[in-house]
Amino acid sequence: MVPERVYDAMSKPIVGHLDAYFFQVVEDIRGLLRRVFGAKDAFTMAISGTGSAGMETAVANFVEPGSKFAVLANGFFCDRITEMGKRYGAEVVRLEKPWGEAFSGEEAAEFIRKEKPRVVAFVQAETSTGVFQASKAICDAAHEVGALVIADTVTSLGGMPVEFDANGIDIAYSCTQKGLSCPPGLAPISLSSQAIEWLRAKTTPQRTWYLDLKLLDQYYDGARRYHHTAPISLFYALREALIAIAEEGVENRWARHHRNHLAFVAGVEAMGLKMHVAEGRRLWTLNTPRVPEGVDDLKVRQRLLAEHDIEVLGGFGPLAGKVFRVGIMGPLSTGENVLMLLEAFEKCLRAEGYQPAASGSEAAAACYASQTS
Amino acid sequence: MVPERVYDAMSKPIVGHLDAYFFQVVEDIRGLLRRVFGAKDAFTMAISGTGSAGMETAVANFVEPGSKFAVLANGFFCDRITEMGKRYGAEVVRLEKPWGEAFSGEEAAEFIRKEKPRVVAFVQAETSTGVFQASKAICDAAHEVGALVIADTVTSLGGMPVEFDANGIDIAYSCTQKGLSCPPGLAPISLSSQAIEWLRAKTTPQRTWYLDLKLLDQYYDGARRYHHTAPISLFYALREALIAIAEEGVENRWARHHRNHLAFVAGVEAMGLKMHVAEGRRLWTLNTPRVPEGVDDLKVRQRLLAEHDIEVLGGFGPLAGKVFRVGIMGPLSTGENVLMLLEAFEKCLRAEGYQPAASGSEAAAACYASQTS
Repeated sequence: MVPERVYDAMSKPIVGHLDAYFFQVVEDIRGLLRRVFGAKDAFTMAISGTGSAGMETAVANFVEPGSKFAVLANGFFCDRITEMGKRYGAEVVRLEKPWGEAFSGEEAAEFIRKEKPRVVAFVQAETSTGVFQASKAICDAAHEVGALVIADTVTSLGGMPVEFDANGIDIAYSCTQKGLSCPPGLAPISLSSQAIEWLRAKTTPQRTWYLDLKLLDQYYDGARRYHHTAPISLFYALREALIAIAEEGVENRWARHHRNHLAFVAGVEAMGLKMHVAEGRRLWTLNTPRVPEGVDDLKVRQRLLAEHDIEVLGGFGPLAGKVFRVGIMGPLSTGENVLMLLEAFEKCLRAEGYQPAASGSEAAAACYASQTS
Repeated sequence: MVPERVYDAMSKPIVGHLDAYFFQVVEDIRGLLRRVFGAKDAFTMAISGTGSAGMETAVANFVEPGSKFAVLANGFFCDRITEMGKRYGAEVVRLEKPWGEAFSGEEAAEFIRKEKPRVVAFVQAETSTGVFQASKAICDAAHEVGALVIADTVTSLGGMPVEFDANGIDIAYSCTQKGLSCPPGLAPISLSSQAIEWLRAKTTPQRTWYLDLKLLDQYYDGARRYHHTAPISLFYALREALIAIAEEGVENRWARHHRNHLAFVAGVEAMGLKMHVAEGRRLWTLNTPRVPEGVDDLKVRQRLLAEHDIEVLGGFGPLAGKVFRVGIMGPLSTGENVLMLLEAFEKCLRAEGYQPAASGSEAAAACYASQTS
């Protein structure tokens, strides 16, 4: 869901892509993005493409033909990074986990120390499973062996702390349409000073032109050298979305997402559903309760959409039919919405033959009460 | 300049990227784009990136490592295509012309027959020079030697006929922010049935993932298989811009651009300026009168912006300081605007020490009168 003010900003008259005003917008975005990334001095900008373009930017610029690329694989987007790594000619090695589990710091570190890759990639917030991956141990181990770390923060940025600096991430990319509550079309990216140094020293030929960070560096930094015509309207929208976040306060925003996530979990657990992801490993933005035995998740979701105008996604791949994927983020993440959602969810589950153990919305209300007391 | 209705459409609430409504928008765009391309059955879609992403899509999907790639080079964007061809590993051969000249059918055909490349690229509408490149002889010669043809139609699409089918172009890409009068952010692309066949039969590995036409084909055609989250708002905008063009009638629109181009040329020539591009080779959307001897083009342009709110671009590369680049397209291409522009231009030239031979706006008015009589 996108706030009205962001739509309004997006529809303001465009200026030229080398206009001083545009570069002011770009600078505003860069400063505001650093705050949501938790990146004090990182080189931060927005790539002119959607989240997957951000992923390809990370892989294309930092993964080299023949170099070892280690992927921590526990969901759909890890597989996409793997595919991109292969396309760019890397020797990809993977540590695999079932969809829905996170890596422990120890097992990730052991793998990285053994493989000694040039680049490590992991998904901090996996949209396909609802898993949040703790990041520090991965980054520490990678730096021990001299590797750079790519983190996919598509579903964390803006909704929960990425902690770019504190974790020691080198390259983080995201999208605009999830935690930032902005229309899709841009991919925020942050690079550590190590990543920038590595990039500037790099001499191997770069395949992609559109996503070439060295050229983009010259466009957005210092020289203002024309690269491509940036999608100005989306930059207006992103700036406004980030200003709205700054006004709320990014820590307040994270706390709000956390609070509503906890209440939702209390609600579905009271109804007797199990969360697919272990406590402490869950995203605050996207919840994955398991589909109860004997219930057809598609029917429940169709009913939610038809009768309550609520869109809940299903699982896919190994989780097809096994989990609901319930996004609660941005302006939608409110106590009122969580209670309304739980009531609707309960009705639809009942209609499809499931008998909840207790009232989800009552449990959620109790959870809110205990949080504020 | 973007019509208000397009901004309005862009700011409508977004839906999911796999929503049936979104695919309806996509289908509308595909049908409407075919008309502006002059492509009856071409595989047409919009790439989720700006014009340069369209260029890279063409090169990345059709130019293979080690294969011969012939570029007709007479401006800035031909050099960019050359650079991309090299990055994707092609053996690039170039036929060069000074910036501002077009290739004759004979010289282009001779070059292509001699080189027998796998792919030929040319720029139909060169933004850096104002040259329109006649396309049929190039395509005929390319097909003679079994090559596919890439045409850059960034500054022609929507403002003058691309004639995709009639010329025999195989791959044409463009942008949204020029002749289509839409904010930047998408790259319309059309593929001939030969190009599609070639693509489907291709077995060499594809480097780019974000711009992989085979994957995009599966997303936008038939299977609707999730690829990336399309920038929905820009699709809304593009559809509305194309509907506005359809309402005007694409032929009427071309005629309007032609009429106003002719009047502008009559005006600047009456003032004593020379057009840099020979008659019959000029773009209707972007005019390049030469900077008169002794005049500082930057001062004229700064004055136009400061005193008349009119932005005129300068030449660059070999044409730096030598030409003005005057875009007259979309809603701006009206008789009233041409007369206003010429009057302002005349004042600013005078203020910078140039004495026009005669009144530009009077000559333009006479040109309009002769066109309607």
